[in-house]
Amino acid sequence: MRIVIALGGNALLRRGDPMTTEVQRRNIRTAAQAIAPLTAEHSIVVVHGNGPQVGLQRQQAESYHDAEPYPLDVLDAGTQGMIGYLIQQELRSLLPPDRQVATLLTMITVDPGDAAFANPTKFVGPVYAKEAADALAAEKGWAFRQDGTAWRRVVPSPQPRQILEIGPISWLIERGAVVICAGGGGIPTLPEHGALSGVEAVIDKDLAAELLAENVNADLFVMATDVDGVYVDWGTPQQRRLGHVTPEELAAHNFPAGSMGPKVQGATRFATNTGNRGAIGALADIAAIVAGDAGTSVVTRTAVRA
Amino acid sequence: MRIVIALGGNALLRRGDPMTTEVQRRNIRTAAQAIAPLTAEHSIVVVHGNGPQVGLQRQQAESYHDAEPYPLDVLDAGTQGMIGYLIQQELRSLLPPDRQVATLLTMITVDPGDAAFANPTKFVGPVYAKEAADALAAEKGWAFRQDGTAWRRVVPSPQPRQILEIGPISWLIERGAVVICAGGGGIPTLPEHGALSGVEAVIDKDLAAELLAENVNADLFVMATDVDGVYVDWGTPQQRRLGHVTPEELAAHNFPAGSMGPKVQGATRFATNTGNRGAIGALADIAAIVAGDAGTSVVTRTAVRA
Repeated sequence: MRIVIALGGNALLRRGDPMTTEVQRRNIRTAAQAIAPLTAEHSIVVVHGNGPQVGLQRQQAESYHDAEPYPLDVLDAGTQGMIGYLIQQELRSLLPPDRQVATLLTMITVDPGDAAFANPTKFVGPVYAKEAADALAAEKGWAFRQDGTAWRRVVPSPQPRQILEIGPISWLIERGAVVICAGGGGIPTLPEHGALSGVEAVIDKDLAAELLAENVNADLFVMATDVDGVYVDWGTPQQRRLGHVTPEELAAHNFPAGSMGPKVQGATRFATNTGNRGAIGALADIAAIVAGDAGTSVVTRTAVRA
Repeated sequence: MRIVIALGGNALLRRGDPMTTEVQRRNIRTAAQAIAPLTAEHSIVVVHGNGPQVGLQRQQAESYHDAEPYPLDVLDAGTQGMIGYLIQQELRSLLPPDRQVATLLTMITVDPGDAAFANPTKFVGPVYAKEAADALAAEKGWAFRQDGTAWRRVVPSPQPRQILEIGPISWLIERGAVVICAGGGGIPTLPEHGALSGVEAVIDKDLAAELLAENVNADLFVMATDVDGVYVDWGTPQQRRLGHVTPEELAAHNFPAGSMGPKVQGATRFATNTGNRGAIGALADIAAIVAGDAGTSVVTRTAVRA
């Protein structure tokens, strides 16, 4: 099978982990150990998040006053290199020497008319007290929203439209390489009269990975995270994990926008648009998820019948 | 022709330029405008330096005290993403929409027994006063050397051995993509019993590009910089630019290790190992360098006769 795997931020850096290279490398090694065995039988494409890493770079840059901090698109590009490197290095160390692994810089176009630009929702960077947030809003034109008791910058999260490097990505998959791409959801790019420019926004990583999975004709799209599937009635005595569900069954439930929402949306979109399976589950269970024995799988009614 | 172009650090950031994204983008746009016309007739691979960018990231990281700075290999990977992105974006904006451009993360192995590890020579990061340098040397085990009146950290500059992503790089070239790779000389990597690890070192970007040019069977290897060729008797009334020279003629002269030395070594190595032309010249003259009408070209005696 051709499988696109989206690694959740928690697979790379757990909440509360100190953000050292060693901690990131250890978590990425665990992910690589889960993914490597799949490459013997399957064609694998890996997408990763970058939220905490972009946040740290932004904080480091703001502590240094002799140079203007890089904008978000350039930081995205940097984390595609950094995190891609750690994943690629760990995977290659586990694979036969002749198995190629390639990390490709990925730009994804967004629509300037996307409604998200009028309604920024994606938290980026550190938390601020109200006064500091207000000052930054006035100085830089940033938008802020409350996150718990503190304030954080929010940027638009537009829909991914076109993966500009889909050609090279597909060619490398066809040649048998394990491909790492669309890190952090890809670099959001506005195409204006042929000239490309980066934009201060964040494409949801799961939705970028879903578009990629469609584009490369994936047989399976897996979003690996730190919970073992999609739950209904979470936190009540009736809580239960969904196994195989149809998009229609899933649509009967509500999921929070910040965490499970985009994953449910991604799995549903993939199943609906391709007729193939979209799955959500724990990274540690990935082999069983691929086999269809763990996690939550979204399949269309037609696919269930077949 | 298949042409590997190494962009000198000065092509991306001139000495004294403020290191903002805008300045880097403007310089990279100039480079892209010089390179883009070549892609109509030739297969192009671009390698770039990363010295100033790694230096800035290191300074930013050291100004922020809540997280350990990333090691040099991770910073290298980050700059491959950042600088590769800017080059790729500017090139794509100038090329027909169906022309693919791909930036590939590149690791290059080095030999743990390389003599360079006993004799670090490559300046990295900011300048320090003697006392600060001594303190860092004691605390972190870094080596320092005097650079003018100040002190700077030096790391080993080992020879590039094997480009680990040469397979994907070659496949993308064969499919007609413009490929950006081996940025900053590639990430220096030690292969130990199959497991790969990054090492605190810098592979010379021109020598990495030379190995790449050999590996992809380039017809021409160009090192683009801010001078229009290799000069002898520089700074004297007799100074003259060399046009077409053989490795033997070039070997009769001495060039400073820090600037022209590695370029002369790269051009000589390429001409000697492949019989093809290795050239050094100004980025602005690149079309004329490709035509053989500008810059300094190193060709073997056999190639001159042919």
